[in-house]
Amino acid sequence: MRPRALGTAGRGLLYEEVAAKMGGLIERGTFRPGDRMPSIRGLSRQMRVSISTVVEAYSRLEDQRVIEARPQSGYYVSGRPVRPKLVPTRVNLGEGPLLVMRTLSDASLVPLGTGAPNPQNLPAAKLTRMLAAQARRHPAESVSYSGTTGLSRLRTQIARRSLDAGCPLSADDVVVTSGCVEAVTLALQTTCRAGDTVAVAAPAYYNFLNFAQWMGLKVLEIPARPEEGMSLDVLGYAIRQNPIRACIVIANFDNPLGSLMPDERKRDLVRLLAKHEIPLVEDDVYGDLAFGPARPPAAKAFDENGLVLLCSSFSKTLAPGYRVGWIAPGRFQEKVERLKPLLNVATASPTQLAVAEFLTNGGYDHHLRAVRRVYARQVDEMRDAVLRHFPCGTSVSRPRGGFLLWADMPAEVDAFRLYDEARQRGIGVAPGTLFSAGNGFRNCVRLNASFWSASIARAVEELGAIARGIA
Amino acid sequence: MRPRALGTAGRGLLYEEVAAKMGGLIERGTFRPGDRMPSIRGLSRQMRVSISTVVEAYSRLEDQRVIEARPQSGYYVSGRPVRPKLVPTRVNLGEGPLLVMRTLSDASLVPLGTGAPNPQNLPAAKLTRMLAAQARRHPAESVSYSGTTGLSRLRTQIARRSLDAGCPLSADDVVVTSGCVEAVTLALQTTCRAGDTVAVAAPAYYNFLNFAQWMGLKVLEIPARPEEGMSLDVLGYAIRQNPIRACIVIANFDNPLGSLMPDERKRDLVRLLAKHEIPLVEDDVYGDLAFGPARPPAAKAFDENGLVLLCSSFSKTLAPGYRVGWIAPGRFQEKVERLKPLLNVATASPTQLAVAEFLTNGGYDHHLRAVRRVYARQVDEMRDAVLRHFPCGTSVSRPRGGFLLWADMPAEVDAFRLYDEARQRGIGVAPGTLFSAGNGFRNCVRLNASFWSASIARAVEELGAIARGIA
Repeated sequence: MRPRALGTAGRGLLYEEVAAKMGGLIERGTFRPGDRMPSIRGLSRQMRVSISTVVEAYSRLEDQRVIEARPQSGYYVSGRPVRPKLVPTRVNLGEGPLLVMRTLSDASLVPLGTGAPNPQNLPAAKLTRMLAAQARRHPAESVSYSGTTGLSRLRTQIARRSLDAGCPLSADDVVVTSGCVEAVTLALQTTCRAGDTVAVAAPAYYNFLNFAQWMGLKVLEIPARPEEGMSLDVLGYAIRQNPIRACIVIANFDNPLGSLMPDERKRDLVRLLAKHEIPLVEDDVYGDLAFGPARPPAAKAFDENGLVLLCSSFSKTLAPGYRVGWIAPGRFQEKVERLKPLLNVATASPTQLAVAEFLTNGGYDHHLRAVRRVYARQVDEMRDAVLRHFPCGTSVSRPRGGFLLWADMPAEVDAFRLYDEARQRGIGVAPGTLFSAGNGFRNCVRLNASFWSASIARAVEELGAIARGIA
Repeated sequence: MRPRALGTAGRGLLYEEVAAKMGGLIERGTFRPGDRMPSIRGLSRQMRVSISTVVEAYSRLEDQRVIEARPQSGYYVSGRPVRPKLVPTRVNLGEGPLLVMRTLSDASLVPLGTGAPNPQNLPAAKLTRMLAAQARRHPAESVSYSGTTGLSRLRTQIARRSLDAGCPLSADDVVVTSGCVEAVTLALQTTCRAGDTVAVAAPAYYNFLNFAQWMGLKVLEIPARPEEGMSLDVLGYAIRQNPIRACIVIANFDNPLGSLMPDERKRDLVRLLAKHEIPLVEDDVYGDLAFGPARPPAAKAFDENGLVLLCSSFSKTLAPGYRVGWIAPGRFQEKVERLKPLLNVATASPTQLAVAEFLTNGGYDHHLRAVRRVYARQVDEMRDAVLRHFPCGTSVSRPRGGFLLWADMPAEVDAFRLYDEARQRGIGVAPGTLFSAGNGFRNCVRLNASFWSASIARAVEELGAIARGIA
C-alpha cells in the first residue's frame, strides 16, 4: 500500500506517528515477539484515528518486519525481535529535480512556482532612496569591507528586533550573511560533516535537501502537518534510533507547508533536542509575515543551551536581491565567525547600509503591517480559487503567515505531469517531489500567492483544469 | 641547517630546485646507491648557484635519507634506494595565525598589514552615483534576485574585458560571485574533496591555506620567487610523486610575493598540469593593476582543455565592499553553476548593476590608467623606504603590478615578534608565518603600499627601527 503524504483530515495522529508509537511499545517490550497486536478497529478507537490510518501504520510495521499478519487472526509481533527502524536517506536528487528547481524562477512563466515575493509588495522606491543616500553619506564605508561579521549598525538593529521574536540577542550575537540560505549553509557546515544525518520536515524546503546532498549528508524525513509542523513523536522515536547530528526546522510559516508550530511545541522541540545535545537550525525567514496582530516567537526563544542557530533575512520582506541575512549561532558563534570570511570575506556593504537605515528610519513595522494584510488577503483568495478549480478531494493548507500554499491533490494526480503540462502553457508551479529525498508528495504542489491578480486567478483556474484532466 | 625561505639573491636556482633536480637524477638512476655525488664546489659551478645553496640542497636530501655524508670524503647516494619525497602537509593553523589574520584589517592600526586597497584610490563618488542611478532606473531588478549566475549585462562586460587578458570568453562562460574569495572557494569545492592534496606557492596567500584547512585538504608548498613565481621544476617533481588534485596560482602580481609569471612559464604551467589532468585555480585579482602599458595575459589564456578556473573580482580596483567577483570555470562550469545558488542563491543585485554600469560607461580603463600610476609610485617609494630603514641584508620584492610588497629580512629577525611590537605601537603588519602551512617565512613580512603617505612613511621608518632592534 502506497503511504499517503499527509493524513487526509489533517487532524489527529498521522499514520507514521501511530507506527512510531506502536513500534516504541514493541521496542520497550510492552508487546513481545509472538504477542497479538490490538485489532485495527480497537486501535482506531483507542487512538482516535481512522481505520485507514491504522491500516497504513500496521502496513508500514509489516514492511519493516516488526509485525506480521496471520490470515483471519490479526497482526502479531514478529518472531525474531526486530527493532522497527526509521532509515536515513542519502540525498541523491536526480537530474530531473535539479533541472526543475532551475526553472522555478524562470521569469517567462506565470510565477506560481517561485519562492520569491512579488517585487510589487517590496518597498523598492524607499529602499532605493536609502541605498543612494547611505552610499553618499558614507562613501568610504560603502566601497570598503564591512567587517566579516557585518556592519555593527545593522547587527544592532537586528538584535533589537529579535526581542519581538522572543530572543534577547545583542549585536555581537549576530553575524550578517548573504541571505538566509547562506545562514543555513553556515549553520549546517559548522554543525555537520559528510555522512552525518540531519532531521528535516517532510515535506522539506528543497534547498535544504539540495545542500544536504552537496555536503554528503543523510536526511531523516519527519512527517509534518500543515497545522503544526513536524511530528515530535516521530522525531523523538527517530532520535532514539539514529545518531542525528542536527535538525532543521521552519517553525513559523514553513516552506512549503505553511505550518505554524504552536509555542509549546517549539519549547518541546528545543527541549527534546537539547536533551540529546542536537543543534537546531531554525529558518525564520517568514516569521515577520504573520497575518495576526503579533509576530510568533522563534523556537530560539526557548533555547537555554545555545543549541539553536537562528537564521533569517530580509529577502521575503524587503529585497531578495539585496542578499542581506543573518545568523545568531548560539554556541557555534566562533565557528561561524571563522567560516563566513573564508567563504566570501563579508556581505556587500551598500545593501547592508540600506537595510540598516530602513530598519532604523524606514518604517519597517509600518511596511510589515501593510504587507501582512496584503498577503493574508492574497493567500485567502488563492486558497479559495484552488479549492474551486482543483480536482475534487484536493486539500489546501491554510497558512497564518507568509505567502506559500501547499495543495494536496487526489493520489492519482501526478504533480510532475501537472508541472510539465502547465509549463508548456507558460505557467510555473513547484511539484511536490522536489520537497522529498524519497519519493513522497507526488500528488502535491506548492503555489506562490504573493503575485495574486486577475491574471494569476486565470492561471490557477487553468492549472486546476489541467489537474482535473490528469486525475 | 635551517632552510632559507628564499634564495638571498633572488636569482638562479633555489636550493629546493637543486634538491629536486638532484633527487630526480637519483630517482632515474643517473646516480645509484653508493655512488659519490658531485662535490659541492663542482655542483655550484655546474648549476651556477652559490655554495650555500648546494649545501642547503644536500642538507635537505640528507634529511630525507636520500644521500649521506662521509667524513672527509663527500656525499654518497644512500645504500637503500630511497625515493626523495615532497610530503604534503595537512593544514593546521593554530589559534595564533587565525587571531593574527583577524587583526590584519583592524581599522585602528596603521594599515600596512591589510590586503585591501586604500579607499582613496577607489572611484567611490562615481560608483555611488551609478549605484543610485541604476537602482532608480531598474527598481524591480535592483530588489530582486539577479539570476543565480549573475546579471547578464555584467557577465557580458566581464567577457568583453577578458580579451585583454588573452581569454576569449562569452557571457555564458562566466558566473558572478560574491568576490574573488568566493570564486576560489567555488573552484576548490568543485575540484577537490577532503583529504586531497593541492599545490600552492610558498609563500601562499593565507586565505588559500585557511580554506584548505576548512575543507580538510593537504597542501604541497612549491617554492616561488619574487621574479617569476612558482618553480615549475619542483612542481613537476611533486606531481610525479604525489596525487595532486588541483594547483592554485596567482600568476599576475602574486599575493604576497608580487611575482609576475612570464608568459612562457604560464604556458608551461598550464601544459604541465594538463598533461596530468590537474585543474588550475587561477586568482587574477591583481591582473588589472599592471604598472606597464599593457595588462599581462592570464594563465587561462593558454588553456586548451578547459582545466583552468579563472577567478577574479573588482575588489582591488573598484570596491571590495561591493563583493562583485566572477569565475570562468572551464569544464567545471556545470558544477559551479550548481553550487553557487546552494551557497547564497545569487550575488547582490544593486552592486552588480553598479559595476556593470561602471564597466560600460564609467571609464574603467581611464580609472585603471590613473590608479596604476599611483600604485607604481607608491610601491616604489615604500620599497625605497624599507630598504633605507629595515635591517641591513633585507631584500624587498620589486612587483610590476598591484600594491603589495614582500620584505625578506635577515634570518634573526622574527617577524612575529615584529608584528607584536608594531601592533603595540599601533602599526599593522602581516607576518610571513601566515603564508605557510609549515614553519616558513619567519623572517618575512607583507606590506601594503596602497595607503602610502607621509604618515605611512613614518610608520615604515618606525617598523624598520623595531626590526633593527630585534635583529
